Amino acid sequence: MRAIDQVSAMQAWSREVRGRDGLKVALVPTMGALHAGHLSLVTLARRHADRVVASVFVNPAQFDRADDLARYPRDLERDGALLAGAGADVLFAPDAAEIYPPGAQTFVTVEELAQPLCGAHRPGHFRGVATVVLKLFSIVQPDVAVFGEKDYQQLAVIRRMVRDLFLDVDVLAAPIVREADGLAMSSRNRHLAAAERAAARCLAAALAAGEAAVAAGERTAAAICAAATDELAREPLARVEYVALVDPDTLAAVTEVGERALLALAVWIGSTRLIDNRVLERRAP
Amino acid sequence: MRAIDQVSAMQAWSREVRGRDGLKVALVPTMGALHAGHLSLVTLARRHADRVVASVFVNPAQFDRADDLARYPRDLERDGALLAGAGADVLFAPDAAEIYPPGAQTFVTVEELAQPLCGAHRPGHFRGVATVVLKLFSIVQPDVAVFGEKDYQQLAVIRRMVRDLFLDVDVLAAPIVREADGLAMSSRNRHLAAAERAAARCLAAALAAGEAAVAAGERTAAAICAAATDELAREPLARVEYVALVDPDTLAAVTEVGERALLALAVWIGSTRLIDNRVLERRAP
Repeated sequence: MRAIDQVSAMQAWSREVRGRDGLKVALVPTMGALHAGHLSLVTLARRHADRVVASVFVNPAQFDRADDLARYPRDLERDGALLAGAGADVLFAPDAAEIYPPGAQTFVTVEELAQPLCGAHRPGHFRGVATVVLKLFSIVQPDVAVFGEKDYQQLAVIRRMVRDLFLDVDVLAAPIVREADGLAMSSRNRHLAAAERAAARCLAAALAAGEAAVAAGERTAAAICAAATDELAREPLARVEYVALVDPDTLAAVTEVGERALLALAVWIGSTRLIDNRVLERRAP
Repeated sequence: MRAIDQVSAMQAWSREVRGRDGLKVALVPTMGALHAGHLSLVTLARRHADRVVASVFVNPAQFDRADDLARYPRDLERDGALLAGAGADVLFAPDAAEIYPPGAQTFVTVEELAQPLCGAHRPGHFRGVATVVLKLFSIVQPDVAVFGEKDYQQLAVIRRMVRDLFLDVDVLAAPIVREADGLAMSSRNRHLAAAERAAARCLAAALAAGEAAVAAGERTAAAICAAATDELAREPLARVEYVALVDPDTLAAVTEVGERALLALAVWIGSTRLIDNRVLERRAP
């Protein structure tokens, strides 16, 4: 696996591989601190391209809190070893000054999709996400880009950006990878102390409670969200940021679960903010 | 000359011409209502590429006033004939719904450069410009794009966007083309009644007065802008929107003319808003 940290070198690699050799390139954008969820993205990318570029870039523009940015885990050596093992061909790990040089002032916003859910609690977050992903697309020129469904709203924002800006990139989504007890894998899980780690199970349990409510015949968002919220309320270490039932495409709040609805939640466990989601499908009666 | 009005057909043309044939493509984005200034952009584009695409798209997102959008001159047949005569290979003239289909919600902002001058008077204007130019770049995939220096701030915003987003496009600037009496060519000139047309000469005269002040040894922005403003004040039909001396790169106001400074102005003649600018250079004493 080749490691690249300069924009110009990354562009040159891509020109050569795509232009001269006619190969298909996939991009897996990450912020490092890799876990099995990230590696599943690399595996999916491999199946859809000849070469896989994984980027590791802790994007300052998408952090709404300085403390979160400061304590975001960084371990490039370990990340590189994991990516090589998963079959990545290039690790692109630029410095912040490569991506946001002095004077940089261009940003991309996706409007409605960035408003609800995490967008309502993390001002500027999705603007930072859309901007850095567009920059990475320009630099790497991927044919395919892979994102995880754990960051469901991020995936929706990026799909919308690709469509609206006529970008020539296929966006692929990879399912959430979970720990044995159901906790969605996240780089932030490593911030959890032992008791918090046990408590964090409540997110998956809340989604399961919402799903059980639907299976039991509940249709209203109020009842389904209440089932999830009640589950979270049983965990003393959990503080709910939001529990919402939304349209899986527009992310607009729904009052009833139709064919499909997305149950999404953000929960603080101590000083760590975790998110999770599940698409609920109404089965034919 | 080929006329294309669908995004997908434009993309297919570009893929073929660039990818298969390896030709260099230039884009000249316009809003139609073409004049000799636009045609000079096509001529410049021809010199830097094998194929020239001229787009004609009255971009709703860059109009801050509905009346301005409604009365913006449209004459696609005449535009097509002029572009063919000037040597364009493709006229790309999509409908607004092609570029902004229902649900489109992604926008590009260039922050500091869009604040002063026209940006202070036309809220959202440069956001609309940056967004549509990025979309056109995605669709046409030009190697080169040509813009006129009359819209100096627009040129600065686009250069910045290209740099910040690592777009693989060379931006070329073409000098302002003027009528015999100095009036900068503009599609909006055709709105001017005869007396207004005569009055509109005051913009170029004001720039010349500013330049004369520098030649006479004036150094302060206050004195140089006053020379221009005094000239405009002599024209009863003129209403000044702004007269400003700024750094040609950052567009930040300067208090003194250094090596180079940009004198820029926007003036209403009746219900028509006109802009013009000139780079002032201090000569060695």
